Amino acid sequence: MFGDVKFVCVGGSPWRMKVFAEYIATELCMEDPKSEYPNICAGTDRYAMYKVGPVLSVSHGIGIPSIAVMLHELIKLIHHAHCTDVTIMRIGTSGGIGVEPGTVVVTKQAVDGTFQPRFEQVILGKTVVRDIDLDQSLAKELLKCSKELNQFETVIGNTMCTMDFYEGQARLDGAFCFYTEKDKQDYLMKASKAGVCNIEMESTVFAAMCKLSGLRAAVVCVALLDRLKGDQISCSHEVLQGYEQRVQKLVGYYIKQQLKAKAGST
Amino acid sequence: MFGDVKFVCVGGSPWRMKVFAEYIATELCMEDPKSEYPNICAGTDRYAMYKVGPVLSVSHGIGIPSIAVMLHELIKLIHHAHCTDVTIMRIGTSGGIGVEPGTVVVTKQAVDGTFQPRFEQVILGKTVVRDIDLDQSLAKELLKCSKELNQFETVIGNTMCTMDFYEGQARLDGAFCFYTEKDKQDYLMKASKAGVCNIEMESTVFAAMCKLSGLRAAVVCVALLDRLKGDQISCSHEVLQGYEQRVQKLVGYYIKQQLKAKAGST
Repeated sequence: MFGDVKFVCVGGSPWRMKVFAEYIATELCMEDPKSEYPNICAGTDRYAMYKVGPVLSVSHGIGIPSIAVMLHELIKLIHHAHCTDVTIMRIGTSGGIGVEPGTVVVTKQAVDGTFQPRFEQVILGKTVVRDIDLDQSLAKELLKCSKELNQFETVIGNTMCTMDFYEGQARLDGAFCFYTEKDKQDYLMKASKAGVCNIEMESTVFAAMCKLSGLRAAVVCVALLDRLKGDQISCSHEVLQGYEQRVQKLVGYYIKQQLKAKAGST
Repeated sequence: MFGDVKFVCVGGSPWRMKVFAEYIATELCMEDPKSEYPNICAGTDRYAMYKVGPVLSVSHGIGIPSIAVMLHELIKLIHHAHCTDVTIMRIGTSGGIGVEPGTVVVTKQAVDGTFQPRFEQVILGKTVVRDIDLDQSLAKELLKCSKELNQFETVIGNTMCTMDFYEGQARLDGAFCFYTEKDKQDYLMKASKAGVCNIEMESTVFAAMCKLSGLRAAVVCVALLDRLKGDQISCSHEVLQGYEQRVQKLVGYYIKQQLKAKAGST
């Protein structure tokens, strides 16, 4: 059932990954009025999975532990199905740093809350540090696709991955906050100087696990706001939806192009 | 709308928290054939929330970052609604250590992967260590309720909270594993010697955040298997469902008793 999978797209929200599966079906002209794309993992609500031809669309919830559970199981699935040449892309939303809301950020390097490109994990009671390498050629190809599409701004930059959305991202509007507006600005400016263009909550473990399993991987997130200017999203629901669609458009365009190139070469 | 809330129950799965809300409605004799309990947070799929009289039932997904997002927002809600005397209980499933499958574990102390009762978090690029204190009297009351119910085994013990389900919990069946069966057994035996009776993925941040916001808090999880004997659950779906219902029964019984006592005293 999964042997033909070439592209895996993962994102936080089950609903958004269903929408993405439907979008991809239309883009690849696979849509049949009679066909529905059922949630393959309907038996669990840990994650949702949809398959549209060679594309898997999988949700992973919020944060490193949540995506790690799904990735362990997804990597086992890819392995047991003997899939080859699989490209995996995390598509999501993020807080921008020094970029206009709506900018798509393709991750150069995922970094932790101290701006280091590493993923630390406790295994058997000991801290293990793992390397993080995303595929730089894939990032450049995605940037090129965005230029061809010519519909929105896309940049390549570092992505900071945090363990918490409020205090971990220096927000002032959590349930508690023991630092000042100035402390926050200093921290975000330091991040900016370290090349961080956006903040999300899954990229380091995603990059580390994909590297360990030899998958070609990219992280593509739209920035919903510029955190240097505030903590809360000010634009309308419709504008936000448009921003989220940018990531889907870019990744959809890339997948379509790759499949065309493959069809042409065989 | 939320001012009368006295009990908040949180658990990983949105579906399970809906079932719990329905169970509580029946237990508190609030069920009206005409009434449905809608998901208050239907606009987002980050979490689901149901309100049944003075009881809130909220889902939190998998892992520390996921539950932390929900708790920040829940604590703000409780604060703004001027709720008083709120008791919050995490109800869930876990892997047992040295306990029979189906045993309910009420957490004495939540500990990290090195068996320390602390929660470490990176804030503004610096590691902050937070205290963890769960309400010991609440834990004892829950144990007493279990004795009164007399339907299943309940113990009070330490709960280890990990950042990962596979390598973080010394499982051998993840996508990769760089240690041996013996390493695993040694680690789990060390955990057992440190008083750990079960392993899950949210208790430390739950305990730390509840302490910071002055909420009376407990963690009540059923052990689905004994990790000293294996990594995979061997019992049937029906047996598992029965195990999950134990936690609901215990917490439902406690809530009912507390509400009766309050009604009697006024």
